[in-house]
Amino acid sequence: MEEVLAYLNSIYPISEEAINYIMENLKEIEIPKKEFILKEGRICYNIYFVKKGLLRCYYIKDDKEISAWFMKETDIIFSVESFLNQVPSRENIQAIEDCTLYFIEYAELQYLYHQCAEFNFVGRVLTEKYYQLSEERLYSLRMQKAAERYNFIMNHFPQIILRVPSKYIASYLGITEETLSRIRAFKMNGLTKNCK
Amino acid sequence: MEEVLAYLNSIYPISEEAINYIMENLKEIEIPKKEFILKEGRICYNIYFVKKGLLRCYYIKDDKEISAWFMKETDIIFSVESFLNQVPSRENIQAIEDCTLYFIEYAELQYLYHQCAEFNFVGRVLTEKYYQLSEERLYSLRMQKAAERYNFIMNHFPQIILRVPSKYIASYLGITEETLSRIRAFKMNGLTKNCK
Repeated sequence: MEEVLAYLNSIYPISEEAINYIMENLKEIEIPKKEFILKEGRICYNIYFVKKGLLRCYYIKDDKEISAWFMKETDIIFSVESFLNQVPSRENIQAIEDCTLYFIEYAELQYLYHQCAEFNFVGRVLTEKYYQLSEERLYSLRMQKAAERYNFIMNHFPQIILRVPSKYIASYLGITEETLSRIRAFKMNGLTKNCK
Repeated sequence: MEEVLAYLNSIYPISEEAINYIMENLKEIEIPKKEFILKEGRICYNIYFVKKGLLRCYYIKDDKEISAWFMKETDIIFSVESFLNQVPSRENIQAIEDCTLYFIEYAELQYLYHQCAEFNFVGRVLTEKYYQLSEERLYSLRMQKAAERYNFIMNHFPQIILRVPSKYIASYLGITEETLSRIRAFKMNGLTKNCK
């Protein structure tokens, strides 16, 4: 639990009241690989912090899975529309490694925001961080070809490239696994040439 | 200026200190149609509130303009990555009607966040609002066909359909103006049939 408090406190010093409330209400949960923390149609009641493991968020379109993003250690996870408005989710969130997560419930987070004004500083900064990531994905989807999008992930989120199965990365990029293999081969050749 | 304060105060009661600081530092500016408040390569130093008028945000890709979104009365505008990190912007923001805007500078907003803890409540809620909108556009871009995306704008942002020139809406949807005309004609026929 200390890592969550240290992480929040590194953004802005949080009060003893907030620390006590978090320690009383934060729960730890083990999620085995392939299990879900959210399914389409259900309400996202919790906000999660990843202590260990890797998860993916995806939609289903015409019976096909479309990966939306991947979340790993120290990431915060929630289905944005579903959690913030407490309405049914359009997305699924599934563990793709065995995971250890911390979570608190929607009502508990709202209590913190209303009781501890300074906790909104932390909430604002974290929301800004994930808002930026969302805008980055929008820019990437609108403006970049699959190979450029792959490079962006490799440069900024190398853990994803190393740990996420190819089929999910291909689905995120909107390409087949064969095309992804060609992009990877091209990249490897390019890197080998640069090393000569 | 009262409309800005009333808007912020409707989200969470802000302190007299915050009100005084905003009144001292908020500036009003007139932006004639076609003028820019941000150009690619420049840093977004200000955050704007639209009192009157309409603006568009767009990128340039292979000499073509790609509309990213449209902002109207009571919307808050800033280039997310550029403003939050004070780095050069990848996007352009241009008035497409004569506009009256209010704005404060990045450093002034940070001062507010550090001096008035409760102002972070307002900032968090507004960031959540625009984060949701960003995720909605991502979902739309990944999962919906142009006609569905048009319907979404018509149902949720009818002012955009009424006021934004067709060429910009077509560019947002990633289609030609001719295809947009066909979607509109189809929609009108559908509506006429429903009224019989």
